[in-house]
Amino acid sequence: MEKDNPDFTISGLGDCSIPSPVTDVPFIGDDEHVLYQSDLKKIRDFLDAGKEPPRMELAGPRAKIFFEPSELRCGIVTCGGICPGINDVIRSVVLCLRYHYGVERVFGFRFGFEGLVPRYGHEPLALTPDSVKGIHQIGGSILASSRGSQDVGEMVDTLDRMKIGILITIGGDGTLRGACAIADEVKRRGLRIAVIGIPKTIDNDISYVYETFGFETAVTETRTSLYSAHVEATGARNGVGLVKLMGRHSGFIAAYATLANSEVNFCLIPEVPFTLAGFLEVLEERISRKGHALVVVAEGAGQELMEETHARDASGNVRLGDVGIFLRDRIREHFRERGTEMNLKYIDPSYTIRSMPASARDSAFCLLLGQYAVHAGMTGRTGMIVGVWRGEFIHLPILTAVSRRKQVRPGGWLWAAVLSSTGQPAKM
Amino acid sequence: MEKDNPDFTISGLGDCSIPSPVTDVPFIGDDEHVLYQSDLKKIRDFLDAGKEPPRMELAGPRAKIFFEPSELRCGIVTCGGICPGINDVIRSVVLCLRYHYGVERVFGFRFGFEGLVPRYGHEPLALTPDSVKGIHQIGGSILASSRGSQDVGEMVDTLDRMKIGILITIGGDGTLRGACAIADEVKRRGLRIAVIGIPKTIDNDISYVYETFGFETAVTETRTSLYSAHVEATGARNGVGLVKLMGRHSGFIAAYATLANSEVNFCLIPEVPFTLAGFLEVLEERISRKGHALVVVAEGAGQELMEETHARDASGNVRLGDVGIFLRDRIREHFRERGTEMNLKYIDPSYTIRSMPASARDSAFCLLLGQYAVHAGMTGRTGMIVGVWRGEFIHLPILTAVSRRKQVRPGGWLWAAVLSSTGQPAKM
Amino acid sequence: MEKDNPDFTISGLGDCSIPSPVTDVPFIGDDEHVLYQSDLKKIRDFLDAGKEPPRMELAGPRAKIFFEPSELRCGIVTCGGICPGINDVIRSVVLCLRYHYGVERVFGFRFGFEGLVPRYGHEPLALTPDSVKGIHQIGGSILASSRGSQDVGEMVDTLDRMKIGILITIGGDGTLRGACAIADEVKRRGLRIAVIGIPKTIDNDISYVYETFGFETAVTETRTSLYSAHVEATGARNGVGLVKLMGRHSGFIAAYATLANSEVNFCLIPEVPFTLAGFLEVLEERISRKGHALVVVAEGAGQELMEETHARDASGNVRLGDVGIFLRDRIREHFRERGTEMNLKYIDPSYTIRSMPASARDSAFCLLLGQYAVHAGMTGRTGMIVGVWRGEFIHLPILTAVSRRKQVRPGGWLWAAVLSSTGQPAKM
Amino acid sequence: MEKDNPDFTISGLGDCSIPSPVTDVPFIGDDEHVLYQSDLKKIRDFLDAGKEPPRMELAGPRAKIFFEPSELRCGIVTCGGICPGINDVIRSVVLCLRYHYGVERVFGFRFGFEGLVPRYGHEPLALTPDSVKGIHQIGGSILASSRGSQDVGEMVDTLDRMKIGILITIGGDGTLRGACAIADEVKRRGLRIAVIGIPKTIDNDISYVYETFGFETAVTETRTSLYSAHVEATGARNGVGLVKLMGRHSGFIAAYATLANSEVNFCLIPEVPFTLAGFLEVLEERISRKGHALVVVAEGAGQELMEETHARDASGNVRLGDVGIFLRDRIREHFRERGTEMNLKYIDPSYTIRSMPASARDSAFCLLLGQYAVHAGMTGRTGMIVGVWRGEFIHLPILTAVSRRKQVRPGGWLWAAVLSSTGQPAKM
Repeated sequence: MEKDNPDFTISGLGDCSIPSPVTDVPFIGDDEHVLYQSDLKKIRDFLDAGKEPPRMELAGPRAKIFFEPSELRCGIVTCGGICPGINDVIRSVVLCLRYHYGVERVFGFRFGFEGLVPRYGHEPLALTPDSVKGIHQIGGSILASSRGSQDVGEMVDTLDRMKIGILITIGGDGTLRGACAIADEVKRRGLRIAVIGIPKTIDNDISYVYETFGFETAVTETRTSLYSAHVEATGARNGVGLVKLMGRHSGFIAAYATLANSEVNFCLIPEVPFTLAGFLEVLEERISRKGHALVVVAEGAGQELMEETHARDASGNVRLGDVGIFLRDRIREHFRERGTEMNLKYIDPSYTIRSMPASARDSAFCLLLGQYAVHAGMTGRTGMIVGVWRGEFIHLPILTAVSRRKQVRPGGWLWAAVLSSTGQPAKM
Repeated sequence: MEKDNPDFTISGLGDCSIPSPVTDVPFIGDDEHVLYQSDLKKIRDFLDAGKEPPRMELAGPRAKIFFEPSELRCGIVTCGGICPGINDVIRSVVLCLRYHYGVERVFGFRFGFEGLVPRYGHEPLALTPDSVKGIHQIGGSILASSRGSQDVGEMVDTLDRMKIGILITIGGDGTLRGACAIADEVKRRGLRIAVIGIPKTIDNDISYVYETFGFETAVTETRTSLYSAHVEATGARNGVGLVKLMGRHSGFIAAYATLANSEVNFCLIPEVPFTLAGFLEVLEERISRKGHALVVVAEGAGQELMEETHARDASGNVRLGDVGIFLRDRIREHFRERGTEMNLKYIDPSYTIRSMPASARDSAFCLLLGQYAVHAGMTGRTGMIVGVWRGEFIHLPILTAVSRRKQVRPGGWLWAAVLSSTGQPAKM
Repeated sequence: MEKDNPDFTISGLGDCSIPSPVTDVPFIGDDEHVLYQSDLKKIRDFLDAGKEPPRMELAGPRAKIFFEPSELRCGIVTCGGICPGINDVIRSVVLCLRYHYGVERVFGFRFGFEGLVPRYGHEPLALTPDSVKGIHQIGGSILASSRGSQDVGEMVDTLDRMKIGILITIGGDGTLRGACAIADEVKRRGLRIAVIGIPKTIDNDISYVYETFGFETAVTETRTSLYSAHVEATGARNGVGLVKLMGRHSGFIAAYATLANSEVNFCLIPEVPFTLAGFLEVLEERISRKGHALVVVAEGAGQELMEETHARDASGNVRLGDVGIFLRDRIREHFRERGTEMNLKYIDPSYTIRSMPASARDSAFCLLLGQYAVHAGMTGRTGMIVGVWRGEFIHLPILTAVSRRKQVRPGGWLWAAVLSSTGQPAKM
Repeated sequence: MEKDNPDFTISGLGDCSIPSPVTDVPFIGDDEHVLYQSDLKKIRDFLDAGKEPPRMELAGPRAKIFFEPSELRCGIVTCGGICPGINDVIRSVVLCLRYHYGVERVFGFRFGFEGLVPRYGHEPLALTPDSVKGIHQIGGSILASSRGSQDVGEMVDTLDRMKIGILITIGGDGTLRGACAIADEVKRRGLRIAVIGIPKTIDNDISYVYETFGFETAVTETRTSLYSAHVEATGARNGVGLVKLMGRHSGFIAAYATLANSEVNFCLIPEVPFTLAGFLEVLEERISRKGHALVVVAEGAGQELMEETHARDASGNVRLGDVGIFLRDRIREHFRERGTEMNLKYIDPSYTIRSMPASARDSAFCLLLGQYAVHAGMTGRTGMIVGVWRGEFIHLPILTAVSRRKQVRPGGWLWAAVLSSTGQPAKM
């Protein structure tokens, strides 16, 4: 669970004294917040102790801004793996800068942080309403991406040289840390560059953020694979459909996919350890009773069952053992040893899921995230991300956001609903 | 806007003394709530005045229940127009009653409240895990539906005669009032029948409930029509695509559809009046500038522009003038008078949208709503609905839920985002 | 039925003496044909009479061509209503001209034949591989369209002035006649302009052509509406789903949609007259027996039941009475008079269907049609269309193609299969 | 290529003397045929030599039938891997037997040929209009399937004991040979059992049959994977999307998928050998020029490049080396050796594709195939399949159908269109 008193203080580059060029929208006041907790007892505890209960600043357009729009130059960069909705966010940022604030010079850095380092030779794209026309209907990122960090000094040199005032970074954990390092270096040099992050994690594992863009599309897109695996499992004797879904450390996709595809019989996630013997036993029991089974496994589940590799990928993430292949082989072996015919079909739809265009809801969500990131940046706020909490769009310090990872709580309502839907034992 | 101190007190049939047959799930305590407000100032005001800030009871399984499962008989009824997800809810109720509590006798009343009145001759269906297999993948309601209310006495007679302990009603505003009347009559007679509502309104217009099932699917399904209207508009000289969407009194579908399909140039909703002259002027201006336009109108928008009919449909709702046909004709007339060629294509996708199966997210949502309705009913709670507020599933008295209608706030963030996305003037 | 001895002779601008720039493809010889008939008896009759059985010339790349690619300028025009696949054809033509033949100057005339008449002021677009990138994934026509014919002299003036060598027209019956008139005027003036048509009729009503592009997508896209109408019909007491599909004079879409959506109970097409009384009687009988019914009606069906309007649209087509609205009102009236509750939902998905992008199969089909049109044009063939017959791509004189309309044969296998699938009486 | 004079003679159990119970359909005469060839020269050669040009018998209902419907019992069996449309065919057979002929007893044998062998203990299902309701909207086979053959004597014993008059087998090459063996044994024993095959091969590799059911759905379903692979390839530096599609010996799916998804840059099929060095060279050239590439490989392509395993699966098919994994590894190795960054994403969508429900067109096609199989069986025809040739539904002897495999002709129009669309060299 999140800790009880996180730091929600947002930093800024300085006072906002320039009137917003648009005047007929409902502005958000700087004193508007949403309470972090919704439990009266906790709030009363804070008040009784003479402390302010933790609150998050509401996102939205402000009446006074920091940057002079006509002089402003902005940059956007997309890092890490692709995720549904990236192009929606890019487009929204460009349109909001242009039509809401009149900012005309927006640059798209290509291939992630590499695009901020001149020696890679990736020329930035000029982004205009025309050049982003229709891109929200296409998966992936028109800016392309790369994994891994780059030298912070070199990146800030580029921003400084290009006179970038707002840098919007779209990326995951590592990217947010990189954005934070950039914001720190900017501060150290006394530059006027706001760094705003839009968290991109298809796994939905950012703390203090209810949901990240792309997650809902991912859950939606699991339907094809789970349908197929179910059809395959029921179309053969003792059929087993095994589907590996995304979720390195957090099983939200697997859990919600299980609720959204209630044919699933077993859902395995990183947060809930299991033994191989225990799982194989209940699987065998189900097969002998019903003749087929549908298993969903998050890619980070059951890591403790495999030998560790300790390798890391280009983003610095620990390379996980492939639990899908592992389970596929163990299940086959198990039934072979038992002398029982068993027909397993294994599906790994990760690339197909993450390259889809955003669903309707994610499209709307990305539109709003892009607008709120621009509004925040225009006020000179920096080192923060935009997110959503208890139904409100909010500002959150990057350091707080990356201080821990959001996970499925084994004792919470989500996992309870999964257990109830699958009927799988709480312990296996 | 919702009022500041609504009544969230839930009624019950009596004390719960029977232990839940399932024991290894995380139970919800009766003291667990979510604060209605998330604004510290308002909460402090309550506390300073020595009052309890308004809170909603959390939904979920309880350790002690009211009904003895082995003796319990339950009923489900679906009323009003169809909506994506009804079958998901029915299935979830049946599965939760059977597998979580061991309740075996569940009846589906056919054709809405008519099914509770013997003289219509609609025999109730016995609902079992087998008979609800796969129904969540089909649109509509396997129980079918009807509009309008029936005699409360006759309905309670039926429930009493059939020894129904929990009645779950799936329906909108009118249905909820009917459910309330049943609960009142049950109380008057001193019967032991819990009445639990699951609000079904594709318009998402129930107050104190963040979102109702089917709404997200509806927004998703608007994409086809809006895409088509846009293609038609851009494929002809001075093309206008006009799409009428659902929304009798609340423009949530139209507003979210506009955010999810950001090609929309004008969004007209019941909450924001406009003049015909004003609208035609900005439309003409856009056409002369860009050569095409995409207009979304909620069915309840612009009612003041048409002569009222005062007629009511079978559910007792005021029959609205058809604003889609009205605008189609007025726009054509306007350009004809101007002597300007204009090609308008009008699309009304309402039936297609509401008959779709639930989206992935709505499917998961319906699964949870069904489970929470059962959990609430098992404790003898009555006259209440299950809903969601600030990310938590909650109980809400029906009377509070139907006390006012939820609408898009013209000064709120949603409408601001719509204006920002369309670029339409705030006043026309 | 088609007549037994149609004229399949193709005209040309002159001898082909220029070698094809591409040499390693399997060329088609000018003597390669496909027999029009596949019935031995008919062929033997021709041979016995000392006559050549009618044959169609095979389409495909030729070893020798008429135009010098480096000097060639081509034009494309799209006329009439939109249809899935138009953009696929445009793209295919541009890519084949560029990559197969090295033709660099391709112009897209805008807004149909208007684009060939200077006083409308529609500047032609320069079409390049870059400008057609991704257009096949979008519905409609990037060139936009208009209905109606224009002055042939003015159009040929434009082609002559722009030095167009090949004009590719994408359109229906009227467009093909227009293309024919252009080809005739070109011949009269002794110009070197090849006019090649690609028939665009979503109704699939061109004789001597097995299938036209967009038709299969249209049948595919009927599924949503028919599904919805079925769900609505089964979700209410005595529910009737009524869906009007395209088909002005030929019921192919309605017939195939009935086979592809076998829940349909009644299929009404222009080729098979029915009486209102007869239809209402069998509908009522079905409703009383099953409680619901699904009716598909082609827009041109039952015209004889309505008063004729004799009006014509901009393309010169007779304005049909709206049989969907007519049937909707008559059915409602009928049951009202009978005093029987009946719930009818009427869906008219025409705009939604025709604006969709091409299905996979139509996409491949359009790619081929575009290539074959280019191959034909490069040899100086003119006044012809490309089509498909008995599984082969062929050339067909426009005059032969428009000499009659293809219709569903009431005594043929297709209508027999429809009757068998619906169980509707052959006569009503 | 098919040989010039195949044997199209159909066998039968005896004379047809029973009038068809349905009388108002257009019956097909036994003398109605479609010519195998459509090339006049070949036909003239036959006639000049005093021989009959080869012709296929038209499928369809006959006026006189062999079996007495009221006494008839029929069986259906589905074998081998699943394929879109199987359930459509099952449903069509059941509905046609019941509603067209009045046959009430139809049995579904479970798990392929195993279901005909009592010791497996698979009880046959009674198939009725009710039990097949809605199954056409579900992928897979409600009868489930198994691979491999069974003892012909045991199977005929079962048919004889159950008094089956018509056995309809839905399966591929191996299944058809099994059906043939059953028909032979039936003849040897002098039984009155008609064996009718409906060819099920998603690869579309049956000779003398233009297209098999499921093939078009498969091509349609390739779109998701090819879209994803393209998005992944363009979203990273030097991105390569590699998609393995079905096609053990015939590359039709890969070839049509290439035409239907014209972003494909390389299409590799079993019929066109290539060298690894040649392919890697052109791939590298493309990557260096464009920065990304999309590669489609049929599972049977490039087998000669891998060491043979000689293993066979349960159906007796040679186990192919996994060319997808092979190419993935070789490509990675190649670029690693070159020291060039390259990001390859590999997708194998086979299970997802084959488990989908039938597309609209395949649904209609399956409906017709089921009806024609029943019509053929009712006349006592046996040892034959139903198929389609030159736009007509036909009867074909199983022995002729399995006498060779249909393949993509490297010198034909399909491969030419693929080369033209991809721009890949004819030889690599």
